[in-house]
Amino acid sequence: MQDRSHHSTKLTDAERIDRLRLIRSDNVGPRTFRSLVAHCGSARAALERLPDLARRGGARQIRIAREEDARAELAACKKLGVSLLASGEVGYPPRLAAIDDAPPLLGVRGARDTSMRPMIAIVGSRNASGAGLKFANQLARDLGEAGFVIISGLARGIDQAAHRASVESGTVAVLAGGHDRIYPPEHEDLLGAILDANGAAISEMPPGHEPRARDFPRRNRLISGAALGVVVVEAAQRSGSLITARMANEQGREVFAVPGSPLDPRAAGTNDLIKQGATLVTEAADVIQMVTPIMERPLVLPLEEPDGDPFAGDPEDSERARIASLLGPTPISIDDLIRLADTSAAVVRTVLLELELAGRLERHGGGLVSLI
Amino acid sequence: MQDRSHHSTKLTDAERIDRLRLIRSDNVGPRTFRSLVAHCGSARAALERLPDLARRGGARQIRIAREEDARAELAACKKLGVSLLASGEVGYPPRLAAIDDAPPLLGVRGARDTSMRPMIAIVGSRNASGAGLKFANQLARDLGEAGFVIISGLARGIDQAAHRASVESGTVAVLAGGHDRIYPPEHEDLLGAILDANGAAISEMPPGHEPRARDFPRRNRLISGAALGVVVVEAAQRSGSLITARMANEQGREVFAVPGSPLDPRAAGTNDLIKQGATLVTEAADVIQMVTPIMERPLVLPLEEPDGDPFAGDPEDSERARIASLLGPTPISIDDLIRLADTSAAVVRTVLLELELAGRLERHGGGLVSLI
Repeated sequence: MQDRSHHSTKLTDAERIDRLRLIRSDNVGPRTFRSLVAHCGSARAALERLPDLARRGGARQIRIAREEDARAELAACKKLGVSLLASGEVGYPPRLAAIDDAPPLLGVRGARDTSMRPMIAIVGSRNASGAGLKFANQLARDLGEAGFVIISGLARGIDQAAHRASVESGTVAVLAGGHDRIYPPEHEDLLGAILDANGAAISEMPPGHEPRARDFPRRNRLISGAALGVVVVEAAQRSGSLITARMANEQGREVFAVPGSPLDPRAAGTNDLIKQGATLVTEAADVIQMVTPIMERPLVLPLEEPDGDPFAGDPEDSERARIASLLGPTPISIDDLIRLADTSAAVVRTVLLELELAGRLERHGGGLVSLI
Repeated sequence: MQDRSHHSTKLTDAERIDRLRLIRSDNVGPRTFRSLVAHCGSARAALERLPDLARRGGARQIRIAREEDARAELAACKKLGVSLLASGEVGYPPRLAAIDDAPPLLGVRGARDTSMRPMIAIVGSRNASGAGLKFANQLARDLGEAGFVIISGLARGIDQAAHRASVESGTVAVLAGGHDRIYPPEHEDLLGAILDANGAAISEMPPGHEPRARDFPRRNRLISGAALGVVVVEAAQRSGSLITARMANEQGREVFAVPGSPLDPRAAGTNDLIKQGATLVTEAADVIQMVTPIMERPLVLPLEEPDGDPFAGDPEDSERARIASLLGPTPISIDDLIRLADTSAAVVRTVLLELELAGRLERHGGGLVSLI
C-alpha cells in the first residue's frame, strides 16, 4: 500500500546547506521559512536578505546559522544514519509535507520506504491500564496487517505498546529531541528493534538536542501531521494525547478515540473527544473504513512558489508603521490585516516577515498573527 | 418541573367500560383501537360494528369482551389501587400518549402527579458490573435532583439501581405483566418502596396477567415512549436494552449510551449505539442539555377524530378483493396501498380494518401493513 500522488524531488548539496542554515537561524520557524522562500525566491536569496529584513522589523541584528555549522550538523546526521530530507524527497512522509508548519528539513533514520507509506497514529497515556495496553497492542497489530504503518511518540504506555505490536509490520517513532537523545532513555532498545525491522525514526531537531517539555507538543504535530488519522487509546483530561488530537483536528486529520467507563479517569479525555465529534473506535475496521476514502483523494500540498516580484512589495516607512500599529497581542488574521492596512498584500506580508525576523511577531495556525 | 401542554380530560364510566371492552376484544391492539374509533366515531360504535367488520374481513366470528368482564377487570384494578386511564386523563404520561401504539387504557398505580412529570428512562444489563451499577445510581440521583422522574423496567441490575437511587426524587416502574404479577417477584419490596415514596407503576396488561417473554419487548415501548430519552447504561450485543433503544429511536425519543472499554462485552451494545448516533453520556448534564429544548416544544398528539362519515367508505366486494390481492407478507405502506388500489383512502382503511379484525393483517410501525 502506497500513499498516492507524491512527487519525488532531490535537493542539491548546496540547496540542502542553504535550507539548513535558514531554518537554524534566529526567529525562523517552519512558517517563516516558507514565507521567506516565497518572498525571496529561494533559501539562498532569503539568507542574503535576512539581515536587512530583520533590521527593518526593528532588530539590531539577527543570528544567521553559519555554513560550517550546517555542514557539521549534516556530518553528525550522517554519522547517526540520519538523512536530512526536504518535503518531496523520498523518505519525507508525504502527508507531513501538507501541514502548514511542516519542517523544511526532517531528519529521517531507518527505512525511507516505510516513512512513505500510509500511517495511522496511535497515542495515549503513559500510565496506561492493562486493558488500554492490550487494546493498543491489538489495534496496532490489526492496522499493521491491513497495511498501515503505525506512527507514535516512543513514550511509555500506549505509545510503547503500539510500536511494539507493529515492529514487524512497520512503525515510525517521532522524537522530540535529536536522534541521539532518545526519550525515555530505556526505549533505546525498542527503537533499535524498530530500526532493525525496517521501521524509521524522525525528528526535526538537530543531533545533540536534549528534549525539553515544550518540545513534546511541537513534536506531536508531526505525529498527527504525518498520519491519516490519530487514535487516542486512553487519555486523562488535559493530557498530552489530547494536544495531538487537537492538532490532528486543526490539520484536517481524522480523530479517533477509544471509549471507556465514565468512572475510569483514563477514559475521561477519550470520551470527551467522542462528545466533540471524534469517531468511536472499538476495532481496526472503524479506522480503516474512515481513512480509506481519504487515501484515495489526491494530496494537496501548500504552494512553495514565490509570491511575485520580491522587490515589488518593499514597504514605505509610513506603511510599516501603520501595519505595526494594527497589530497587538490578540491574534488577527492576515487577511483582515491586509483589508485594514489599505495597502497591497505583498507589502503586508513583507512587513510581517520583517517583524517576525526581528522576534516581534508570532504566527499561529489558521493564518493568524500577533505581536509578542 | 412539568411536561408542557397536556390537556386534561375525564372519561365517563360508560366510556371507560366501552374502551376497555374494545381493547380486550380479539385482534384489537392499540393501533387497531385507534383506527376503529376514528372509523366508527366512538368505542361504543366500534363495538357495535366489530362483528360485521370482522366477517367482511373473512372471519367467521370475533370474540368481543363482555361488559361484565370489563366491569370485573375495573373492580380488580380498584382493589389493587390501579386506575385505568385514557390518554389525556391526569396520570397518563403525556409523552406516552403521543406514540402511535399508545395503550388506549393504561393501568396506573401510585402517584398520578409523578407519572405526569418529565421522565428519563435508564435501562441496561440485568447482570451489570459494579461500575455499571454505580454509574446508574449516580446518574439517576443527579437526574432526579434536576427534577426528572426516572422510568425503568423494575428488572435486576441497572433497572433496579436506577429505581433505587430515585425512590425519593420520583420513579416509575413499567410492568410487563399485570399489577399483581410483579417480575422478578423479589422486587415487590422495591416496588413497595417506590409507591410509598410518591412513585408509580404502570402496565397495559389486566390484573392476573403473568408476564411472558414476548411481553417484555412490548413493555419496553412504554418505557421509551413515556420518556424524553432513554439512557442505556450497559448492554451486551443483542440485549433487551437495545430493543428499548431501537423503539426510542422509532418513537423519535433521544437515545443516550454510556461508553465502556472495547474489551468489556457489557459495553459492546452501548458502544455500538454511539457509533450509530446515540449521544455519549458520562454525566447527567449530557442528558439534560439534550432534552431541555425538547421539553420546551409543544407535544403533538396523534389525531383521535373520526376520519369522516363512517359509512361513506363502505367498500364494494371488488374493491375488497383488489386491495387484499395487493397485500402480502412483505410490509407495504398504507399510502402506497391507497395509490396502487386506485380507490379512496377511506375504502382502503376500512378494508384494512376488516382484515385486521379477522386476524389476517399485521400493523407495523411507520404506517406499514402486511398479511399474516
